[in-house]
Amino acid sequence: MNAKCSGRIFASIIVGVAIAVGAMLSGCESRPAQAPAKPSAMAGDAASLVYVPPGKYDEFYGFFSGGYSGQIEIYGIPSGRLIQVIPVFSQNPEDGYGYSEETKAMLMTSWGFVPWDDSHHPELSQTNGVPDGRWLFINGNNTPRVARIDLRRFRTEEILEIPNSAGGHSSPFTTENTNYIVSGTRFSVPIPQKDISIADYKGNFKGSLSFIKVDPKSGTMNIAFQILVPGFDYDLAHCGKGPSDGWCFFSSYNTEEAHTLLEVNASQNDKDFVAAVNWKRAEQCLTEGNGKQMAAHYLHNYLDPVTDTAKSEELTSVAVLTPQTCPDMIYYLPTPKSPHGIDVDPTGEYIVAGGKLSSTIPIHSFHKMLDAIQKMQFETASYGIPVLKYEAVLAGEVPNACLGPLHNEFDGKGNVYTSCFISSEIIKWKLGTWEIEDRIPVYYAPGHLMIPGGDSAKPWGKYVVAINKMTKDRFLPTGPEMGQSAQLIDISGDKMRTLLDFPTISEPHYAQAIPASMLMPNNVKYYDLDKDKNPYATKSEDAAKVVRSGNVVHVYMTAIRSHFVPDNIEGIFVGDTVYFHVTNLEQDWDVPHGFAVMGAGNSGLVIMPGETRSLKWMPTRTGVYPFYCTDFCSALHQEMQGYVRVSAPGAKVALLWHGGGK
Amino acid sequence: MNAKCSGRIFASIIVGVAIAVGAMLSGCESRPAQAPAKPSAMAGDAASLVYVPPGKYDEFYGFFSGGYSGQIEIYGIPSGRLIQVIPVFSQNPEDGYGYSEETKAMLMTSWGFVPWDDSHHPELSQTNGVPDGRWLFINGNNTPRVARIDLRRFRTEEILEIPNSAGGHSSPFTTENTNYIVSGTRFSVPIPQKDISIADYKGNFKGSLSFIKVDPKSGTMNIAFQILVPGFDYDLAHCGKGPSDGWCFFSSYNTEEAHTLLEVNASQNDKDFVAAVNWKRAEQCLTEGNGKQMAAHYLHNYLDPVTDTAKSEELTSVAVLTPQTCPDMIYYLPTPKSPHGIDVDPTGEYIVAGGKLSSTIPIHSFHKMLDAIQKMQFETASYGIPVLKYEAVLAGEVPNACLGPLHNEFDGKGNVYTSCFISSEIIKWKLGTWEIEDRIPVYYAPGHLMIPGGDSAKPWGKYVVAINKMTKDRFLPTGPEMGQSAQLIDISGDKMRTLLDFPTISEPHYAQAIPASMLMPNNVKYYDLDKDKNPYATKSEDAAKVVRSGNVVHVYMTAIRSHFVPDNIEGIFVGDTVYFHVTNLEQDWDVPHGFAVMGAGNSGLVIMPGETRSLKWMPTRTGVYPFYCTDFCSALHQEMQGYVRVSAPGAKVALLWHGGGK
Repeated sequence: MNAKCSGRIFASIIVGVAIAVGAMLSGCESRPAQAPAKPSAMAGDAASLVYVPPGKYDEFYGFFSGGYSGQIEIYGIPSGRLIQVIPVFSQNPEDGYGYSEETKAMLMTSWGFVPWDDSHHPELSQTNGVPDGRWLFINGNNTPRVARIDLRRFRTEEILEIPNSAGGHSSPFTTENTNYIVSGTRFSVPIPQKDISIADYKGNFKGSLSFIKVDPKSGTMNIAFQILVPGFDYDLAHCGKGPSDGWCFFSSYNTEEAHTLLEVNASQNDKDFVAAVNWKRAEQCLTEGNGKQMAAHYLHNYLDPVTDTAKSEELTSVAVLTPQTCPDMIYYLPTPKSPHGIDVDPTGEYIVAGGKLSSTIPIHSFHKMLDAIQKMQFETASYGIPVLKYEAVLAGEVPNACLGPLHNEFDGKGNVYTSCFISSEIIKWKLGTWEIEDRIPVYYAPGHLMIPGGDSAKPWGKYVVAINKMTKDRFLPTGPEMGQSAQLIDISGDKMRTLLDFPTISEPHYAQAIPASMLMPNNVKYYDLDKDKNPYATKSEDAAKVVRSGNVVHVYMTAIRSHFVPDNIEGIFVGDTVYFHVTNLEQDWDVPHGFAVMGAGNSGLVIMPGETRSLKWMPTRTGVYPFYCTDFCSALHQEMQGYVRVSAPGAKVALLWHGGGK
Repeated sequence: MNAKCSGRIFASIIVGVAIAVGAMLSGCESRPAQAPAKPSAMAGDAASLVYVPPGKYDEFYGFFSGGYSGQIEIYGIPSGRLIQVIPVFSQNPEDGYGYSEETKAMLMTSWGFVPWDDSHHPELSQTNGVPDGRWLFINGNNTPRVARIDLRRFRTEEILEIPNSAGGHSSPFTTENTNYIVSGTRFSVPIPQKDISIADYKGNFKGSLSFIKVDPKSGTMNIAFQILVPGFDYDLAHCGKGPSDGWCFFSSYNTEEAHTLLEVNASQNDKDFVAAVNWKRAEQCLTEGNGKQMAAHYLHNYLDPVTDTAKSEELTSVAVLTPQTCPDMIYYLPTPKSPHGIDVDPTGEYIVAGGKLSSTIPIHSFHKMLDAIQKMQFETASYGIPVLKYEAVLAGEVPNACLGPLHNEFDGKGNVYTSCFISSEIIKWKLGTWEIEDRIPVYYAPGHLMIPGGDSAKPWGKYVVAINKMTKDRFLPTGPEMGQSAQLIDISGDKMRTLLDFPTISEPHYAQAIPASMLMPNNVKYYDLDKDKNPYATKSEDAAKVVRSGNVVHVYMTAIRSHFVPDNIEGIFVGDTVYFHVTNLEQDWDVPHGFAVMGAGNSGLVIMPGETRSLKWMPTRTGVYPFYCTDFCSALHQEMQGYVRVSAPGAKVALLWHGGGK
């Protein structure tokens, strides 16, 4: 038995589920080495179901979180091809995101410039509970933040830091009309922060649940309020829909309030809690003046709508509610055991938790919960928050479901698909009867699942994608470091059927998908040069210039197939700070230009048609250095180059520039 | 007619090729918007030829350059799935490459730390002219460098800076036994650098062709010699094989020595040159003492074989030869017109150039070249370098081949495949008869082609991949920014047949592929913990500790499913510099752990089994902050966390740490 399998056994010991070890390991052994596949006509049907012929499009855009890459990856479904990466929380040397002057501020935080985060849960904006194709939100887990991506141009437009938080994991899940997206602390901390002993965790460390208001027109985010909660680990969330609109549900573990070796110490209680938050009640409390403004220090970064340049604004307070100042706002639903996923079915009635250390999947009933609150069917209270009786809120249970049930997605036909991390499988079961209808092995250790629209009121229930945490022998090996593994499974029939394995880069956690037909008509192909209000934009070659102000030099440069203006620059000195502002004059689809200058301690730029991007360069040596276009733009791309002369400070070299045949 | 097409027409005007505009635009118009593909059994055969069923492997590893991403991307062939990205020249927030203490030095240059480069041409090491699966080389174009990747563990092990160079484009092409890899300057510059007017380019700016010796056992690179050459733009290269082993060939453009608006000014001459370099003669000249040591300043970065930690060593001189000091070493072969690719056929006899502004493809004969040198059939000399007569070295021409022929690959059956950028097609023609046998449109504007082993003595001539420069409407649109487009074409029959479009991230230039069966047996699955000689490695939980030395704190930390030791740390102060050295104790395949700490102005780490990686953290605020594992490693991954307490300078808080249940 290998080390990985022992880890799983350890988990099962904690769980205490009596299932034969043999069965447990079914998904755990790696296959023997094998010869490369010989493609053959035998592959037939599955092959044609995932094949997108040249010139045709995938049916769905699949938005996968990058996990420890910090970005969003777009995969075509059903082909599994990586279409594009959208930089969000991490520097992206590929296009200069986080390096160029226009984007640097996007990665500013109250901690200073942070080049990276761990992105977890993509969430599409919704109207009436259905993805509407306007925005995609995603959370940064390490330095808690939430980002908004515009789906007309697939660009990160806004990043909002979350104060009073640590590990922004249960985020950014939306209400059915994107009134709010929510963000809860995975790691509790002193709120406000203070220097206290870690041993004093219990009672002193707190969680917070943030409700972020989204402007219905612009999408602009701001924190409407935070709710301070006991110091558990708030793991995931989903908001209600239909009858349960007005409520959001957060899973938690570590109700033991352990602060060391959580693997053991946070796995003691038989049940932890799902926090049910009545945000309409919270709004009322705020209106009634029961909130408190708390000093906080956090950044709100956004692309200025005029200049399309990232700006950081500093925010200094946040409205805070507590269960004490706003009674009836929050209840705990006991849920076995260390629940991870928390998912609301399309009707809004059922709240399904995955208790990762339980083999039973509990389903809470929204209307029973309201009843129980009404009847005050409380079994106790935790730090003043009523804990409802388990049986009083329970709609049903799926017994002996599987090992390590984590996440649930819905097909819109009354079925639930649950990922089972430890037993490496997906089970399909029926809402209402709680009966298991099918199970299928996946390779290996699935985390989230994704059905297009699968957490919405109207899923497009054609495929489920297993987002597996372990890859091992599924793809060509690439040394100790490997991609992760996704599997596309057909759920159009009664039985699930695996169609395709596709590797994913970095580690996708959740994913969401939307029909291509909903996004394609709004796609922006290039930027209108006339509307480029970057203060350093150069709209024509005649306007190109080089301007010195003390030791700072601004180069106003244009790029068009296949030359820069200016392409010869003299009168630059060691010690100068030079900004190359490059405007791409093209007005056509798919004609970016790139810019790089030799020896720069910076990335290159990739500049979209009609756009201006700026690179800071601090020349350190005298000589003559080339710059060039880094994106093969035409037959004469290789000729798209220029030189900049760097002289010693005090040298008698006049400022001079020319290009474009002038 | 859109702007892109006008660009192409402009090129055709320069070329002066009289072909109807209608024909030219054949590959240029974008298709109308269309409905998503409905997968159907009709797709049948092509689908099954590219389909790799779950549990099976791709037949080939395809190594694609990242272009402006600076990395290497591995695609499975024939599936077109992105298997993995290997960080090379750019920071990679995903795994901490360029951010961790063990990897930072890899990106050091004589210019300081450079977070990015533009990677162009992957080249597999060869034995007897055939890829041997040991190493993969790739060049950095902007800050000229060459990297070596170990193909047992798919990791960048070495980066060598190239002095006296600018735009290291014609690089890193190998001799048939990887005696040398070569690197030529795309941009000529003053050598040595000096502050002179750009207008004085002609005669004062020079190129250099570097010959980098590769140690046959370790792969270690060092510059054996550089040849100073006239100030043209050296674009691509290939070395001889079989009879022509001992020679390397470099294409050049801008023999006009223009320094501004090269688009026009470097497109004047009807012929430019291919430089034929006799490196065995160069070795002789060096032995005879005709070389000169020239002062230079460049860095050699490598993973220390003991500690596996990147080190930078500074080098201060390089051996230089000139055509004057080593006669008979270099000859120019006239080649129409602004040639780009330069490719040597599997037999080593034919040297095929793609004159990008010509519609004729010239093929030089190696044995005729030797004859012509013998007979001194020179038409002139350029800066002392004999220019051979075009007719004297010509084996043949492919007339009216296509528009914008760029690159050639070989199938080992006597056929050549040429990419045609302007007419957006691939042509297949026969060596010896020079007759065109087939042509196929590609979408759009192909740059390099790739046949597995297609530049070697024994190609695996089953597929050709077109690496297209323009994408437009081939995949789901993603705003103005799009991936690039590759196309897999079956060349097993007489006629080419397009099987699959697959998107590529960033901009691949060249690619190379090798059968999976050649790499898989050597794949390293994890690092042997006993052999971890990182000076900060912690081999057991008992050995974990926190050591303070002045303001510097070293945390010796272990990670194993599912906890860190230590997981509670106190006695850290604002103003400290804290190094987290995390050793992954796992000894199994595919069990990395990650590490991140809240608010860090750094990336996270991903640590492979048996490996140690170190993150620098400079705490700026008092409080208690979580750290956690960023790679979902087990059912209890969410519990894999800890806290570090940060106190104000001077606070009375003792250094304290524990974890692992102790």
